[in-house]
Amino acid sequence: MNSVGIGILGLGTVGRGVYRVLQKNRELIAARLGTPLEVVKILVRDTGKERGITLLPELLTTDPAAVLEDPGVSIVVEVMGGIEPARRYVLEALSHGKSVVTANKDLMAVCGQELFAGAAATGADLFFEASVAGGIPVVKILKEALAGNRILEVIGIINGTTNYILSKMSDEGADFDTVLREAQERGYAEADPASDIEGLDAARKIAILASIAFNTRVMLDDVYVEGITKIRPEDIKYARELGYVIKLLGIARETPGGIEVRVHPALVRCGHPLAAVSDVFNAVFTRGDAVGETMFYGRGAGELPTASAVVGDIIAAARNIRCNARRILGCTCFERKPVRPITAIESCYYLRLRVIDRPGVLAGIAGAFGNNSVSLAAVIQKTTGVVAELVLVTHRVREANLRAAVEELRCLPTVETVANIIRVEE
Amino acid sequence: MNSVGIGILGLGTVGRGVYRVLQKNRELIAARLGTPLEVVKILVRDTGKERGITLLPELLTTDPAAVLEDPGVSIVVEVMGGIEPARRYVLEALSHGKSVVTANKDLMAVCGQELFAGAAATGADLFFEASVAGGIPVVKILKEALAGNRILEVIGIINGTTNYILSKMSDEGADFDTVLREAQERGYAEADPASDIEGLDAARKIAILASIAFNTRVMLDDVYVEGITKIRPEDIKYARELGYVIKLLGIARETPGGIEVRVHPALVRCGHPLAAVSDVFNAVFTRGDAVGETMFYGRGAGELPTASAVVGDIIAAARNIRCNARRILGCTCFERKPVRPITAIESCYYLRLRVIDRPGVLAGIAGAFGNNSVSLAAVIQKTTGVVAELVLVTHRVREANLRAAVEELRCLPTVETVANIIRVEE
Repeated sequence: MNSVGIGILGLGTVGRGVYRVLQKNRELIAARLGTPLEVVKILVRDTGKERGITLLPELLTTDPAAVLEDPGVSIVVEVMGGIEPARRYVLEALSHGKSVVTANKDLMAVCGQELFAGAAATGADLFFEASVAGGIPVVKILKEALAGNRILEVIGIINGTTNYILSKMSDEGADFDTVLREAQERGYAEADPASDIEGLDAARKIAILASIAFNTRVMLDDVYVEGITKIRPEDIKYARELGYVIKLLGIARETPGGIEVRVHPALVRCGHPLAAVSDVFNAVFTRGDAVGETMFYGRGAGELPTASAVVGDIIAAARNIRCNARRILGCTCFERKPVRPITAIESCYYLRLRVIDRPGVLAGIAGAFGNNSVSLAAVIQKTTGVVAELVLVTHRVREANLRAAVEELRCLPTVETVANIIRVEE
Repeated sequence: MNSVGIGILGLGTVGRGVYRVLQKNRELIAARLGTPLEVVKILVRDTGKERGITLLPELLTTDPAAVLEDPGVSIVVEVMGGIEPARRYVLEALSHGKSVVTANKDLMAVCGQELFAGAAATGADLFFEASVAGGIPVVKILKEALAGNRILEVIGIINGTTNYILSKMSDEGADFDTVLREAQERGYAEADPASDIEGLDAARKIAILASIAFNTRVMLDDVYVEGITKIRPEDIKYARELGYVIKLLGIARETPGGIEVRVHPALVRCGHPLAAVSDVFNAVFTRGDAVGETMFYGRGAGELPTASAVVGDIIAAARNIRCNARRILGCTCFERKPVRPITAIESCYYLRLRVIDRPGVLAGIAGAFGNNSVSLAAVIQKTTGVVAELVLVTHRVREANLRAAVEELRCLPTVETVANIIRVEE
C-alpha cells in the first residue's frame, strides 16, 4: 500500500489545522482511502518559529522548489493565502502534474480561470472547497451532488465575522462599533476588519459560488457590494417589529435578464431557514429546479473546520490519483452570461426616514413613491418631539424606480434625512 | 461525443421524476458532464398505462433482460422499491459490469453488503444517494466531503410524514389522529401509514447513515425504534413550556461503549438547528471532530427532489465511466463495532405522570428517582380536580436507571399512570 505524498505551502492557522487532522485521523483516513497520506514537506517562512504543534524539523523548508519539484509530492496544498506568490506556486505545481488543493478565496476569485487552464494542461486536479464557507462542502454539493439541477438561486451567509456582529447587535441591542470592538477582542474580527465588514470577503465567495452555480465566470468586479457599517440598532429593532432579522447576504440569482450577483445587508423573514443562522455560523441556501430548497449549515472559518474541507479535497485528489482518474471534474464555466446592473434588479426595500412631524407629511412622501410606481407594503411611524421616524417597506419594485423615488424624497422639505435603505429578501 | 446509455427499472413517481429531469436539463447536464445521457430502456409492468409524461413507446419494455443485458445500457437506475425483484435485478446489472444507481432504502438497509460485493466483483459503481433524505446529498457528504473527520454523531429528521404530523400538531394543537387523517388526504401520508408513524422508514435510513458515518455495517435489527403514535397534544404543550419542540429523530452516535443507533421522538431545545425544521422538510445534523456541527436541510421525498439525488448519482457514475475510473468509492464498512443496547444509553428524559393530588406525593415520586440515582432538572405540576398532571425532566442518566425508577413509580399508590416518557436530546 504506497502512501500518497502531500506537500503543504504555508503553516498558518489553516496549514496547522490540516497537519493536525491528517495526523489525528491518519489511520481512519488510510482505511477509508485504501492508502495512507503522508505529509512529506511543508513550506514556511521561518523554520524556527514556535507553532504549537510537534513535527519533525526535516519536514520544514523555506525553499518552494523543495515542495513543488519533489517527485514524492503528489498533492500540493496551498494554504498561504493572498495572490502572490500563491498563484505562481500553484501554477508551477500544476505544471509538474501535481494535484492542487487550495483554501484561497482571493486566488480562486481572481485567478480561477488561469489556474484551471494550468490544471487542464497537465490533467492535474484542482480542488478549492475550503475557499468558500469553510467546513460546509458547498462547492462539492453544487458541482456534483446537485449537477442534475438548473440552479435558480444561491443565497449565503458566508462571512462569520459580520454574522457574529449582526447577531450580537440583534441579541443585545448594542451598536455596531461596540460589538466590532468586542469581536476583535475575542478574535472573531481582524485588527483591520474592512474586508469583512465592507462585504469584500463575502463578495469573493459569492463570485465563486455564482460561477459554479451558473456555469459562467463571475469576476469580483461583477459583484455589487455593500457592507454592514450602516446598520443601526434601530434598524434591527424595526426589522424585528416587521417580522424580519437583518443578515449580510451573498445573493446569486439567474433571471431572464442575466444573472444577479450581490452582497449587501438584507431583511430576512423570521421563519426562513437563513434567519436562524446566528453567531459565527455560515449557511448556504440554494434553490434548484428539481431539488427545490436546500440549505447547508456549518462553521465558515476556523482552524479545524477549514481543515476539514481541505482534507476532504486531499482525499478526493488522492482517490483520483490512486484510480488513475485525475481531472474527472475540471472548470465548469462553459457559458457566458451577462451580469445585470444593480439598478435593474427587483426587490422589496426597507427605508428609515427622519421627517418633520406635521400634517400632510405622509401624503407628500407617499406621493414621491407613487410618482415612481413604488407601492408600499408597510409603514411604521414613531414620533419623538417635532421629528418623527418613519419606516417604510415597499412591494417588489425595480431598483432604478426606488432610487428615483428616494431622490424625490430627498428634495421634500419635510424629509430631514433618508437615514437608511436596506433590501428585503422575501 | 458518445452518449452514456441509461436503463431505468420502474416508472413510478421517482422513475418519472428521473426521466423528466434528464429530459428537461438534458443539454445542461451534457455540458456539465461533457457527454449526453440517453435513456435507452425503461422496465415497466404495463406498457399501456397512462403516466402523465410523453415518451417514445419503444423505450418501454416489460422484459428485465431488455434493460439488464442491453450492451447499450451502461448505467442501470433501480427505482422500483421493495426487496425482490429489485435485489436480483441490481445484482444482475452489476454482474454485467453496469453501474447501478438506486433510490431503494429497503434494499440498501437489508442487502447493502451483498450488493457491494456484487459491485466489487466486476468493478462497477453502486450509488444510493436517494435512499436517504431525498434531495439532501448526505451520503456523498458523509462518504466524501467529510471523509477527513471522525464522525461523532448523526442526528436526522429523516421522515417527512412524521415531521409534517408533529409540526401540524405543534402549530394547531390538534391531536395525532386528526392530523394523520389530514396528512393522508393531502397525500403526505400513505393509506397504510405504519412504516412512517412507527419509525420503521426512519430506522432504515439511520441504519444506512450510521453504516457510512462509522464505517461499520448497521443492520435494521440493530436499530432501537419507537414511533410517534404516543405523542399527545399536551406533551407538545409541556415541551414548549420547557423550551423544546418534539421531533422524530434518527440518532447515530459513537461512544466508547459502542455505537448507538435509534429512532424515537425526542424533545429538541428551541434554538437547535433541527428545531426549526418543520413541515415535510428533512435535515441531517452531524458533528465531526474537525468540522464541528453541520446541518443539511431539504426535501426528503417527492418526485423531483428524489430525482435530483438519483440524477446526481447518474452523473457521477457517467463521469467515472467516461474517465474509466469506476469503483473509485466502494463499500466503506471496513470495521466491526458493537451496537449498545438501549438500556445502556445515557439521556435526559421527559416524563408525564397523572398523580393523586395530596400532600407528600412529590416527595414519594422524588424518592423513587433518588433511589435509582436519577436527578431532576425541571418539574411542572398542574392540578385539575383531585388528579394532578406532573411533568418531570431528568438530568442525564443511564436508561436502565430511568427504567428502574419508572418501575418504582408505577408501584406508588399515588401515581395513577405514567402517561408518557420521551427522551430529551440536549
